[in-house]
Amino acid sequence: MFMLHGRLSAQPGKRDELLAILAEEDQAERLPGCRLYLVAVDGTDADGVWVTEVWESEDAHTASLQLDRVTEQIARALPILDTTGFRRQQLDARAGVPG
Amino acid sequence: MFMLHGRLSAQPGKRDELLAILAEEDQAERLPGCRLYLVAVDGTDADGVWVTEVWESEDAHTASLQLDRVTEQIARALPILDTTGFRRQQLDARAGVPG
Repeated sequence: MFMLHGRLSAQPGKRDELLAILAEEDQAERLPGCRLYLVAVDGTDADGVWVTEVWESEDAHTASLQLDRVTEQIARALPILDTTGFRRQQLDARAGVPG
Repeated sequence: MFMLHGRLSAQPGKRDELLAILAEEDQAERLPGCRLYLVAVDGTDADGVWVTEVWESEDAHTASLQLDRVTEQIARALPILDTTGFRRQQLDARAGVPG
C-alpha cells in the first residue's frame, strides 16, 4: 500500500503553528482511501513536522490533493513553510496497516 | 506518543525472509500499549525493511522487548540481519494515532 514518510519544515519559530494545521486532518472526516495520517515531531529537529501517511493507492493520494479541504489547508500552511527543508521517503506498506 | 521509524537491514538476498518474520506481528494478538506496528519496504532499498511503531509510552515499548513472543522473533531474525544497516528515528506522535 502506498506510504509516505516525510518532513515538512516550518520557518523558524513557526513549527507549532504548522503542527496545528497538519493535525486538523486527524479531527476531520477521513479522506477517501486514507488509512493512516500520522503527524509527529522529532525532539532533535526544531523546525520539522513529520507526516506518515498510508493510502490504498497512489491515485487515492493524488486525488486527495485536489479536494477543497486539502487545497485550503495547503494554502494556509504555505506562508509558514520553508520549502527547502522538504524531505520524503516513499514506501510500500506490507503489514500492519490500520483497518 | 512514543514513535519509532526505523530500518532493519537484511543480509543480501534475505530481505523477504526478514519481512515475513516482522510481518507476523500484524497477525498476532496486539502487544500491550502498541497502537501501530507498520512494516514496509522502500523500492530504492533492496535490503531494508522499515518498521514504523507507535506506543502509548516508551516504557510500553521497552516492556515489549521482554515478552517471550518478541524475544523469540528477534532470535529468528538475528541470523539474517546486517546489524551495521540499522537506523532509527525517534519521534513524538501528536495526531492521527490509530485508536
